[in-house]
Amino acid sequence: MALAAELDKLAKGPARAGLEPLSSLVADDLQAVNRLVVQHMHSPVALIPQLASHIVAAGGKRLRPMLTLASARLCGYQGERHLGLAACVEFIHTATLLHDDVVDASDLRRGLATANAVWGNKPSVLVGDFLFSRAFQLMVADGSLDVLRILSNASAVIAEGEVLQLMTANDTTSDEAAYMQVIEAKTAALFAAACRIGAVVADRPTAEEAALERFGSGFGIAFQLVDDVLDYSALQAELGKAVGDDFRDGKITLPVVLAIQRSDANERAFWQRCLEDQDQRGGDLEQAIEILQRREALADAMARARDYATSARQALEGFADGTVKSALLEVVDFCVDRAY
Amino acid sequence: MALAAELDKLAKGPARAGLEPLSSLVADDLQAVNRLVVQHMHSPVALIPQLASHIVAAGGKRLRPMLTLASARLCGYQGERHLGLAACVEFIHTATLLHDDVVDASDLRRGLATANAVWGNKPSVLVGDFLFSRAFQLMVADGSLDVLRILSNASAVIAEGEVLQLMTANDTTSDEAAYMQVIEAKTAALFAAACRIGAVVADRPTAEEAALERFGSGFGIAFQLVDDVLDYSALQAELGKAVGDDFRDGKITLPVVLAIQRSDANERAFWQRCLEDQDQRGGDLEQAIEILQRREALADAMARARDYATSARQALEGFADGTVKSALLEVVDFCVDRAY
Repeated sequence: MALAAELDKLAKGPARAGLEPLSSLVADDLQAVNRLVVQHMHSPVALIPQLASHIVAAGGKRLRPMLTLASARLCGYQGERHLGLAACVEFIHTATLLHDDVVDASDLRRGLATANAVWGNKPSVLVGDFLFSRAFQLMVADGSLDVLRILSNASAVIAEGEVLQLMTANDTTSDEAAYMQVIEAKTAALFAAACRIGAVVADRPTAEEAALERFGSGFGIAFQLVDDVLDYSALQAELGKAVGDDFRDGKITLPVVLAIQRSDANERAFWQRCLEDQDQRGGDLEQAIEILQRREALADAMARARDYATSARQALEGFADGTVKSALLEVVDFCVDRAY
Repeated sequence: MALAAELDKLAKGPARAGLEPLSSLVADDLQAVNRLVVQHMHSPVALIPQLASHIVAAGGKRLRPMLTLASARLCGYQGERHLGLAACVEFIHTATLLHDDVVDASDLRRGLATANAVWGNKPSVLVGDFLFSRAFQLMVADGSLDVLRILSNASAVIAEGEVLQLMTANDTTSDEAAYMQVIEAKTAALFAAACRIGAVVADRPTAEEAALERFGSGFGIAFQLVDDVLDYSALQAELGKAVGDDFRDGKITLPVVLAIQRSDANERAFWQRCLEDQDQRGGDLEQAIEILQRREALADAMARARDYATSARQALEGFADGTVKSALLEVVDFCVDRAY
């Protein structure tokens, strides 16, 4: 299917139920997680819960904690430890969002003012540190060294990915391998860890841990690839949604890498001016989108996302069919089909 | 002794051996810790070890990891776990320094360019996150949930203290209680935790853990009080050392709190203009120092520091006398007598 038609279909809403089956399945658990999150972001220092609740409230779909909840369910877990661990995952994610927005000097996140735009960079850095510490306090209270190992490893890898992204920004010679390394680290590592700890609390064999980790990793990569495509979506722009953030920041995402590989001298000069010299003018984003479409860079990046989605789905093959498994498969489809 | 004479004495060098007995005692261990620090700051993302080694190299006395090493020795510990844990303490400290320098927009630390001045704020935030994660990875490798609890609690408290410091900055109505809360959290919590984990690795009774925690806490408070006094030291200024950072940042430290309590209308207007309105002019720092001296605010803050040093020393009374204990007592004296 041509990308334009594909995006057109997506704009009308995903054909499948999408996030809904997963959301329904874990609705009660997620409410409990939300209560834990609110409870544990408390501090006698008033600015901390103020700022933290701003970003948590703006926090969208709670995809990562939902993955922990659903993975635990998929492994037949009957207890309550997955609730606290899902809150840890959300705290780590929220801490990285706060620091990301400082690093990217972002003013908006999902249409709302970012914490750094409201309160300045300083409290965003420090409240991020607080939430990160809080995540580790909650893990310690849970008491599993395996979980602590998985999430401390993921945190270190996320930070490495963010630094690598910074190093490859504005570098039009940066290649696909560097891009994959960035998104595996900054996005897929937490998806993978969030899923894996579901098997850990359920005390399942290592093979199941590994399968859930592969699922989360493939899903996370697909998710980020789609995110990076949507940042250049003409249709998103028509729908009044934010596009072009990556372009303005000079981030070298896969669509750009592919377009540069396929560029002629004029186009190469265009990318160098816009991304390397950061000399951007009116109409440049539109031209970037036009080139990305003509060079089939967006379509190919979407194809790559679908490949990773497929490998994520395959990772769940060993698990028994049922509502939890189909909800997880559905959410992967939704994320590669989403039009937001 | 009058403060001027006291500072004069200090300028000529501390009368006592100071840091030297402790440094000698833990010299081999500290070398091992330095090797661990260098080894574990490694990352395939080249900027991480570059930036981290810049701040670790600039990192001064290694006071906090030395406290872990000496505390373990004081408890008769014979193994090697204290080395990795001392490295954790140093990583947590380094991460907070990186974030502090971003928050304070500092250009210099101990006479060297700060990481944020060399590489910008973005990598400083992210490498701080990396080092913080690394600390937790090392604690997990050590395997003690007690240590993880102590250091994750300390990390959360440090972040709270930093946020509270931000909230009280530029507020000339902020009082002594708020100041004490800030320094107990931002400084004393890590000193206390660094000491306490020395007893934990040695598997000593809770009473010894608590005694070492009290020692570290009292020492940390005294250390920070002296730091805050030295930021207004006329003598430091004469010696060409950096003074006035807190004044420029509008931080409400104890000397300022005491001076404001004792101020007349003119002086109150001066503090409000300089610290609240951040309207600072040439000669203001000199005038601030003159007022702080005349109102005996520096002398009284030093007296307070000596009180906390005394309570730190008392906390060690239950431990057997010997080279380790006297080295620890010596370093407390040194820190309240130091002229740097």
